[in-house]
Amino acid sequence: MSNIVTFGEIMLRLSTLTGTHFSNAGSFQAHYGGAEANVAVNLAVFDHDVVFASKVPDNALGLAVKRQLQKYGVSTKQLLFGGNRLGTYYLDSGVGERSSAVIYDRANSSFASVEDIEWDFEQTFGNADILHISGITPALSGKLAEITLNLVKEAKKRDIKVSFDINFRSKLWNHEQASKVISTILPYVDYCSAGKMDALYLLGIPENQSSQADTDYYYQKMHEKYSNIQVFYSTIREVHSATSNTLQGTLWKDGKTYVSKVHKLEPIIDRVGGGDAFSAGILHGLLTNADLNYTVSFATAYSSLKHTVYGDCNPFTVKEVENLLENGSAKINR
Amino acid sequence: MSNIVTFGEIMLRLSTLTGTHFSNAGSFQAHYGGAEANVAVNLAVFDHDVVFASKVPDNALGLAVKRQLQKYGVSTKQLLFGGNRLGTYYLDSGVGERSSAVIYDRANSSFASVEDIEWDFEQTFGNADILHISGITPALSGKLAEITLNLVKEAKKRDIKVSFDINFRSKLWNHEQASKVISTILPYVDYCSAGKMDALYLLGIPENQSSQADTDYYYQKMHEKYSNIQVFYSTIREVHSATSNTLQGTLWKDGKTYVSKVHKLEPIIDRVGGGDAFSAGILHGLLTNADLNYTVSFATAYSSLKHTVYGDCNPFTVKEVENLLENGSAKINR
Amino acid sequence: MSNIVTFGEIMLRLSTLTGTHFSNAGSFQAHYGGAEANVAVNLAVFDHDVVFASKVPDNALGLAVKRQLQKYGVSTKQLLFGGNRLGTYYLDSGVGERSSAVIYDRANSSFASVEDIEWDFEQTFGNADILHISGITPALSGKLAEITLNLVKEAKKRDIKVSFDINFRSKLWNHEQASKVISTILPYVDYCSAGKMDALYLLGIPENQSSQADTDYYYQKMHEKYSNIQVFYSTIREVHSATSNTLQGTLWKDGKTYVSKVHKLEPIIDRVGGGDAFSAGILHGLLTNADLNYTVSFATAYSSLKHTVYGDCNPFTVKEVENLLENGSAKINR
Amino acid sequence: MSNIVTFGEIMLRLSTLTGTHFSNAGSFQAHYGGAEANVAVNLAVFDHDVVFASKVPDNALGLAVKRQLQKYGVSTKQLLFGGNRLGTYYLDSGVGERSSAVIYDRANSSFASVEDIEWDFEQTFGNADILHISGITPALSGKLAEITLNLVKEAKKRDIKVSFDINFRSKLWNHEQASKVISTILPYVDYCSAGKMDALYLLGIPENQSSQADTDYYYQKMHEKYSNIQVFYSTIREVHSATSNTLQGTLWKDGKTYVSKVHKLEPIIDRVGGGDAFSAGILHGLLTNADLNYTVSFATAYSSLKHTVYGDCNPFTVKEVENLLENGSAKINR
Amino acid sequence: MSNIVTFGEIMLRLSTLTGTHFSNAGSFQAHYGGAEANVAVNLAVFDHDVVFASKVPDNALGLAVKRQLQKYGVSTKQLLFGGNRLGTYYLDSGVGERSSAVIYDRANSSFASVEDIEWDFEQTFGNADILHISGITPALSGKLAEITLNLVKEAKKRDIKVSFDINFRSKLWNHEQASKVISTILPYVDYCSAGKMDALYLLGIPENQSSQADTDYYYQKMHEKYSNIQVFYSTIREVHSATSNTLQGTLWKDGKTYVSKVHKLEPIIDRVGGGDAFSAGILHGLLTNADLNYTVSFATAYSSLKHTVYGDCNPFTVKEVENLLENGSAKINR
Amino acid sequence: MSNIVTFGEIMLRLSTLTGTHFSNAGSFQAHYGGAEANVAVNLAVFDHDVVFASKVPDNALGLAVKRQLQKYGVSTKQLLFGGNRLGTYYLDSGVGERSSAVIYDRANSSFASVEDIEWDFEQTFGNADILHISGITPALSGKLAEITLNLVKEAKKRDIKVSFDINFRSKLWNHEQASKVISTILPYVDYCSAGKMDALYLLGIPENQSSQADTDYYYQKMHEKYSNIQVFYSTIREVHSATSNTLQGTLWKDGKTYVSKVHKLEPIIDRVGGGDAFSAGILHGLLTNADLNYTVSFATAYSSLKHTVYGDCNPFTVKEVENLLENGSAKINR
Repeated sequence: MSNIVTFGEIMLRLSTLTGTHFSNAGSFQAHYGGAEANVAVNLAVFDHDVVFASKVPDNALGLAVKRQLQKYGVSTKQLLFGGNRLGTYYLDSGVGERSSAVIYDRANSSFASVEDIEWDFEQTFGNADILHISGITPALSGKLAEITLNLVKEAKKRDIKVSFDINFRSKLWNHEQASKVISTILPYVDYCSAGKMDALYLLGIPENQSSQADTDYYYQKMHEKYSNIQVFYSTIREVHSATSNTLQGTLWKDGKTYVSKVHKLEPIIDRVGGGDAFSAGILHGLLTNADLNYTVSFATAYSSLKHTVYGDCNPFTVKEVENLLENGSAKINR
Repeated sequence: MSNIVTFGEIMLRLSTLTGTHFSNAGSFQAHYGGAEANVAVNLAVFDHDVVFASKVPDNALGLAVKRQLQKYGVSTKQLLFGGNRLGTYYLDSGVGERSSAVIYDRANSSFASVEDIEWDFEQTFGNADILHISGITPALSGKLAEITLNLVKEAKKRDIKVSFDINFRSKLWNHEQASKVISTILPYVDYCSAGKMDALYLLGIPENQSSQADTDYYYQKMHEKYSNIQVFYSTIREVHSATSNTLQGTLWKDGKTYVSKVHKLEPIIDRVGGGDAFSAGILHGLLTNADLNYTVSFATAYSSLKHTVYGDCNPFTVKEVENLLENGSAKINR
Repeated sequence: MSNIVTFGEIMLRLSTLTGTHFSNAGSFQAHYGGAEANVAVNLAVFDHDVVFASKVPDNALGLAVKRQLQKYGVSTKQLLFGGNRLGTYYLDSGVGERSSAVIYDRANSSFASVEDIEWDFEQTFGNADILHISGITPALSGKLAEITLNLVKEAKKRDIKVSFDINFRSKLWNHEQASKVISTILPYVDYCSAGKMDALYLLGIPENQSSQADTDYYYQKMHEKYSNIQVFYSTIREVHSATSNTLQGTLWKDGKTYVSKVHKLEPIIDRVGGGDAFSAGILHGLLTNADLNYTVSFATAYSSLKHTVYGDCNPFTVKEVENLLENGSAKINR
Repeated sequence: MSNIVTFGEIMLRLSTLTGTHFSNAGSFQAHYGGAEANVAVNLAVFDHDVVFASKVPDNALGLAVKRQLQKYGVSTKQLLFGGNRLGTYYLDSGVGERSSAVIYDRANSSFASVEDIEWDFEQTFGNADILHISGITPALSGKLAEITLNLVKEAKKRDIKVSFDINFRSKLWNHEQASKVISTILPYVDYCSAGKMDALYLLGIPENQSSQADTDYYYQKMHEKYSNIQVFYSTIREVHSATSNTLQGTLWKDGKTYVSKVHKLEPIIDRVGGGDAFSAGILHGLLTNADLNYTVSFATAYSSLKHTVYGDCNPFTVKEVENLLENGSAKINR
Repeated sequence: MSNIVTFGEIMLRLSTLTGTHFSNAGSFQAHYGGAEANVAVNLAVFDHDVVFASKVPDNALGLAVKRQLQKYGVSTKQLLFGGNRLGTYYLDSGVGERSSAVIYDRANSSFASVEDIEWDFEQTFGNADILHISGITPALSGKLAEITLNLVKEAKKRDIKVSFDINFRSKLWNHEQASKVISTILPYVDYCSAGKMDALYLLGIPENQSSQADTDYYYQKMHEKYSNIQVFYSTIREVHSATSNTLQGTLWKDGKTYVSKVHKLEPIIDRVGGGDAFSAGILHGLLTNADLNYTVSFATAYSSLKHTVYGDCNPFTVKEVENLLENGSAKINR
Repeated sequence: MSNIVTFGEIMLRLSTLTGTHFSNAGSFQAHYGGAEANVAVNLAVFDHDVVFASKVPDNALGLAVKRQLQKYGVSTKQLLFGGNRLGTYYLDSGVGERSSAVIYDRANSSFASVEDIEWDFEQTFGNADILHISGITPALSGKLAEITLNLVKEAKKRDIKVSFDINFRSKLWNHEQASKVISTILPYVDYCSAGKMDALYLLGIPENQSSQADTDYYYQKMHEKYSNIQVFYSTIREVHSATSNTLQGTLWKDGKTYVSKVHKLEPIIDRVGGGDAFSAGILHGLLTNADLNYTVSFATAYSSLKHTVYGDCNPFTVKEVENLLENGSAKINR
């Protein structure tokens, strides 16, 4: 298997139970996750060797993060302990017509307050094959934008592939700010998760007026702008209600777009981490040189399964994903 | 904001958890509610000044009721303590093809056993703008029918608007009994929640044979009979299963019917209080002189949200309702 | 009412809660059930006198089984105590696209290890009207195949009707093994639950090439092969997802097929025991000489209700089933 | 084993969870029990044939009662269905210095409203060895006092032993009322649960001024008054806190008092049903002609175990009680 | 009843369940509380008119705080909405030898970040009889120390009694810092909660070398230093384990010390808010001019009850406290 | 830190919740543990590098075991997948006078059925400092007794210290069988957990008739018999009730016995794994060359903490143990 490094923030998510208004919540479900941490866990579940570099406070919350990551086999050697606090956020869980709502309480976290590159490059990279970062990391602070750029450059120097998931968050920065920072990173990227909205609002691709399918058009245009990026991928999600969506995966390589079947996600138990699961599935396919049709189908099925369990981590094994690919949502085997 | 008085019974509801047959229920969820109490809570949530006049036993159950009402800001100055017991009922929660079932155990409650007007008219009405009562209250006893009539007359004397929700309950009285009592009340009513079934079986409106739409026809005919009633409203609910319904709100004023979009309620977490939420939404619109299209849309969206939480009270704020009106059941905002 | 004897294994089922991956399950829901035990419980719920003959270990698990059966009125006089262990299995509960998965841990159970007929024929049969066994029992061991055959022969000697549910389990034996054993039993059977798959793979019926409807064709052909079997029945289930199915019941007698309406099962709370509920519903109809259209409708509605509660037992009374038959999944009656 | 008949009311108990004030209880634990029903269940657990005669409403609550009784093997042939409602009560569970508190809501129950002897004497008594009733039954109504007296007379006619547990409840009647009714019953009683308080306030025994031990004195005096009573028994409970008590059992026969060791009950999980468990243990000893020292020790140990489980029923088997008698609260055996 | 104003921070407490290590907590219990908020709630429970002045974020957490306060009848007219975040802290619940542990995450909260007196003095004070503040409020920021001093001065100007609970928190400031600030406040205080540790380390009272009892000595010396303070009170707590303490209340007035009996708190369900409950009990006694022996006994019993329920608020009514005072932890009354 | 290898079985424990009789358990808490696995987890928690060699089935239960071990940092490189089933056992949780009871269902497990040394010696031992095994492993089968002996011999060859915890289980073998096998292993052991009972019944030490303290006497005599054993350790536990024990640790080295203070364990949340925690604490002291007084105090405090959490694993860090050693069960630090 491969060696992967991811770098980003991991937070405590405090969720209400379905059917409870926030003001009536007598307890919160606790989950630890973050875009890069989720990808780390998911790739470790697929038996890759994964290092997650981050920083958490030196208290029981930091310890909880460490054990959560270890549980799935992620190396915590580059998980630093120190700083003020663990970033948290509250999720008011939606159902039916009622959307989920997020209250962020992540300011001044140990990770977001990092002022220097406190991780050891040599140790972190080791014999890594790939570095994965999302656009959330450079959005957290000017310093982290700088560190992110530094990291991707260092990775390129070492011939390590760079995977970047744009993952725009409007509560962290606006289009203009994001666009500026991301455009400094993209020239070093090999694999990029970006969709139509990213193309339009962050990469400045003009709207599709052609007869070409949207998927092809935007991937093509983005590739024209950043020819160093060999692979693009993203999902098309239709939201019928908070608990009923459809999901289709798309993957672009060498001028060709590969698409999965459309999955019906209903009921959705928890959609947080669904995108990270898709990214992990795509990276797993690329790292194992799998067929690209299989890769996009695998990644989408894996993402679909994520929606059936609570938590940011996607605990399903390759075998369980393949069972869905082969049998669909079949009868109980007994 | 406005001043509202409501008068009625509040009960303890004991519900099974989904997926449990009543005979296997090792615990019951406890909720306190009643048609008028729910409207009181909902209007208080919208920041109106609301008084709920009722009577509960002077024990821990009565105290629980008081605190539940206070939580949402309802004044309990006219909540009397005394009498035998708190009315209760059991709800065997349905799911899919299996309907919910109710076992009433409300006889001889402190409220239903009231023999005199124990509330102080002057204090209760104060500077009220509106009095809201449902047809459940006069159904509880001959004495309460008398008190209800007395109250609506007193309200009219004081130039207080009277809102009446017919809310026919076949387990409390039959059509004939209800019709007789309600016909004495309706001449004093300004706003009335009544639908086709009420028109046909309680108000004696002949069935629609015309080419006119049912909604228009029945509202029109009811208005012809009781020209003092300025506003009619009700919902059209299609029941696909215990956990899948559609809901559309309708509102009639000055000869014109306003309708909301059709909401898909799926899955339904708890539908008790859904009608009261609609009433509260309509009254909120009327009290704030809102646009009537907005009012019926607001009330229906607010009722839709009620179906996503456990309990009779509808805890969603105006802002949360408007979020649903504006964005539909959209993506998580993060 | 009638007297029924069932014979088979009862196991402990340990299920995860919805939304939890098996590796994250901090607890398991405990249910006791088995094909014949479920039929026993269901018929006892319908007020028949039912004896369940089986064997469980002489420990707290055995006691739990006994009390579970007694709860619904099943006689445990022929429930023997002894042997090694209670058979168990784990159910990883599916949802949406994710299928349920079963891990069997039933080898070497007290029942499966039975070496002799330890039950007293005279006492067990008493004044029984019917003996019910499923194909799971003879699949458990060579000895149990022998005992099963012995039992059905003894039943016939005593003019007791024999009901047999083929209930093929691929994790217990293959088609060839099953076919061989089952063909020795079928000549003694009066009522048989068997569907198209059973006809094709276990009874050697050639595939339907005719213009005849499948249902008619396979029942007819099976009857031609085993003319002693007077009644055939089975359900047609379409699996849209782990939590959304449709279900239609079919019943054949005297050359005529009776079918129920198609039930939409959504959401499914727990489908284990759904087939046994259908069998029990059919037997109840036959034992009470009910109309055959009613019987198949009753059995299917009863099976539908099973899908709305956790556990193998179907706790709904005749009155509750009839309420569904008459009102559909209607409004709350209050 | 023996044949026992008990007669009395069974109620639904709704308890808060430890650590929750009643006004904050979002759910209530549901348990079904009553003085005579508990004795019935406990004796059935000891494998006696027990009939519990009572009346419950013909709804899901009545069905729940039936299944609860059947679970432990009690015959429900004389459990009638009809009347208004199931008696209920709320238990605000105490802990440490905070006492438990009870809110009764039992008026107008199906049982308490009985106006005639609706049970068939011949069927109910059958070949009974003993009839057990507590003082709660005649306290419920004048009619039930009459029926109780009738029943004990009928029992005596049939040479059936009569067991009577005085079980004074100050919320049902006062000393004077109780004394009057009970004095009509005691002349027909063979075994009587009565302690010092009963002797003083209900039987009019003067306070012990002698040098004789209280236990001996009061039992002796009561026997002098009612020489037909062959056996007296009761417990001495010291209440250190709601969750810490000591308990000692006493039993008098033929002029001699037998006492158990003092049991330390800490922590107490649920003390409801503790007295009924002691009664059942004593009756089991008498019915099996056990040694009287063993009997009082067995009954007290059995009562002690009751305090370690939730619910009114005492589910422990003879073997489990004997394990406590022999090993004390020893190490885990593994 | 009286009018009370309290001013301070209210936080979200996230607690683990007993028996769970923090790193294994899959959920946290949510409670809202703070020293002054708890006193506010408790006095409102005793039917006083209480205003709690504070500031919370304008989001669902702020709304939850508002409803929690309203539930018990506290006026939220002076609860401002705005700022960054709600202060939170995690409580790792102890048991037996294992202490509870707190992780504070309260920096940069809406309240702690207050830069101006945002509350309207006239409205806040209204016709207040008493102002209550704890030493936590001035510890939160230099600005809040200033505002606190300002408030107590304003209160004195208006002839409003000032109650101050020293409530030293070592995680917020050290002895020197606290001493400096508190010494500016004490000259305006009428009622003060302070114990031996406060006297020694914050007020500079020399250690007791006399034969006088500690309680008398320190109260006397503190009074000598601040003769404006008319009442001192505090509790003596012996910690045997995290779940077993003893508690004794003391109250000093006019040179005389009044003490309660020693309460045994075992098991302790939740001790957070126990000190605030004592303060509220003392203030209730003073406000109602109760006997001082009764006052200290009432306050200690009320504090003892707090330890039996989860949460910071003490929901017990005067009647429930008096039941403990009169009956001790007696038998269930039924 | 050091390198440790442990070898043994890990099982699924299914426990009832406190206050529930086994026959009423609707769910079981799931914990994975075993004597050697627990020591492995505990030493990994102390940041040692630990390998746990074992075998589990290749299904979701095996995966759950793997993730549970990884969570705490144990290497699962030598955790083999295959065989029949995971050993399980049921724990009926005791409270007060009621003892816990165990029902084993561990026969034919993947580990117990091992027929060959399937682990790679070189890889397993690597650069290990110590091998730890308990007496449960050789008790599981003749083959495992052989493998155990083989392993300890191989360890000695490699100069790896051998730690052996006698851990006699009467449900697995009798004294004679155990004695025979253990006497072949002890000549290779360096550190041994053995107490008075082991000395008397397994090692044949005559009962202490001397004036010497028992602890000294038995350790001395065992050392005389097996002079290769340098360290002995064990705990003295007094069982007052299932939820109240005292615990004292003892450690013998170089002719001297070191004892901890007596810890009061009340209430006990879960005592399973308490002995393994003590062993891990002792090994941690020995591996870090800590002072022996500190070592025995540390190990006992660590074991005491285990009793306060559910599960076999002891999640407390060195810092948390030292907090108990230094502060006792003190006040909340806040």
